[in-house]
Amino acid sequence: MELQAIGVQHPAVRQVQHIQNNTAPNRYKLFVAEGLWAHNMLLSHNAPIDTFFWCPEAIYADEAHRRAEETAARAERAFRISLRTLEKISERDKPDGLLSLAALPRWTPRDLRFGRSALVLVADGLEIPGNLGTLIRTLDACGADALVLTNRKTRLTHPKVIRASQGTILSVPTLEFEEVAEAAEWLSSQRFTTYLADTDEALNYRQADYSGRTALVVGSERYGIGKAWYEHGHSRVAVPMLGSGDSLNVSVSASILLYEARARKSRW
Amino acid sequence: MELQAIGVQHPAVRQVQHIQNNTAPNRYKLFVAEGLWAHNMLLSHNAPIDTFFWCPEAIYADEAHRRAEETAARAERAFRISLRTLEKISERDKPDGLLSLAALPRWTPRDLRFGRSALVLVADGLEIPGNLGTLIRTLDACGADALVLTNRKTRLTHPKVIRASQGTILSVPTLEFEEVAEAAEWLSSQRFTTYLADTDEALNYRQADYSGRTALVVGSERYGIGKAWYEHGHSRVAVPMLGSGDSLNVSVSASILLYEARARKSRW
Repeated sequence: MELQAIGVQHPAVRQVQHIQNNTAPNRYKLFVAEGLWAHNMLLSHNAPIDTFFWCPEAIYADEAHRRAEETAARAERAFRISLRTLEKISERDKPDGLLSLAALPRWTPRDLRFGRSALVLVADGLEIPGNLGTLIRTLDACGADALVLTNRKTRLTHPKVIRASQGTILSVPTLEFEEVAEAAEWLSSQRFTTYLADTDEALNYRQADYSGRTALVVGSERYGIGKAWYEHGHSRVAVPMLGSGDSLNVSVSASILLYEARARKSRW
Repeated sequence: MELQAIGVQHPAVRQVQHIQNNTAPNRYKLFVAEGLWAHNMLLSHNAPIDTFFWCPEAIYADEAHRRAEETAARAERAFRISLRTLEKISERDKPDGLLSLAALPRWTPRDLRFGRSALVLVADGLEIPGNLGTLIRTLDACGADALVLTNRKTRLTHPKVIRASQGTILSVPTLEFEEVAEAAEWLSSQRFTTYLADTDEALNYRQADYSGRTALVVGSERYGIGKAWYEHGHSRVAVPMLGSGDSLNVSVSASILLYEARARKSRW
């Protein structure tokens, strides 16, 4: 494969560094995919690949050679880089000689059509990227319709979100709202019953009604759900806490609620 | 408070480094607790404190001064250290001037007495400390009786296990078995019904029978449950996977199973 060789000074290399460090605007939701597993994911999801960086000296597996050719053919532009340049832009120990700038899908409320028993999770103010990625993985697994973000504190393009999502971020629809009121009104206009996950004055989550369309709101690791969500008259549901701790990990509690809703909707 | 001042060459300081880096045997299950939050946890759980290190120059909060005195009074031995020494042994940015070597409780099968509807989780070969800690936090929350470890790959004294457990590791009983057969026989002798969490040839987890005593086995992040667990005729239960991914995060799937068992046992 013949590709143009570029060095660390090339603007494409600098762009990767900006995306990694979040030091430039990123309106196309570009993220960095590294290594064989991530490239298999990009190719199988048909994700738009902006730039492909190929470092043949770092490739040992035959599969990686084949993926390199497929990725180069799919990418808007493709370059050859040295081991030294790869080390500058890679966050992994062994990126298998493959690194791409790819784009996350972008969704608007108009792209979504909900069925009678739709299921949506709202993540309000979540701070830890690994938690957000794990949540997206659960949303995929339980067949949820969308993830809605309010008071967003972590970006979806964060490497730890991508990794923890195990690639499901390429298929689970995500929407972000600037204002909680907007999100609440949109859910209401779509005939969702919205529950806030909160242990105070809450109904046991097994007793809640999950018929029709259901939206579940979970809050930040440190502060819970933001105040604005409490101004819309939504009911609260809680996973009972029977031990010495006063809360569950947020991606755990969201997953328990999501699967309860899914099981009840599907009459498992 | 007057405490003996020691420097980086002191054996107690070196011991902390060995524990942090896991470079010496640790038969008393010592772990490093850093900062105000961790010390509040030690004091409230009455955990045995082996050595307390006090760095007054790094203390800013009044509460930390009070905790320092309480911890020094409770510790087997207590020393004063400089900021420079604290930096050598601390893994945190701001350890609030408080660092202790404390001991995890140690349990044997004989310490445990099970009720009629006991609930136990077996973690086989789990590799990621954060997952193990998050699991322990869920075990506390759902009132489980114990965590059983087989094919242990990560130590309970790992700082990330302690942190993710949010202190619940001080109260949730944990048992380790050298051999899977030993664990399986012990559970059977205690009249547990054991289920393996596996998606192949498995029953939907909502259809399983959780009456009596229940043990749930989950496996490693990469390889699932080890072969030896399949030699005892246990049934398999699965959380249905409805999306593009083929698995859930292990602490998520374990939590969904644990709360299902708890809900059914408690008739929520």
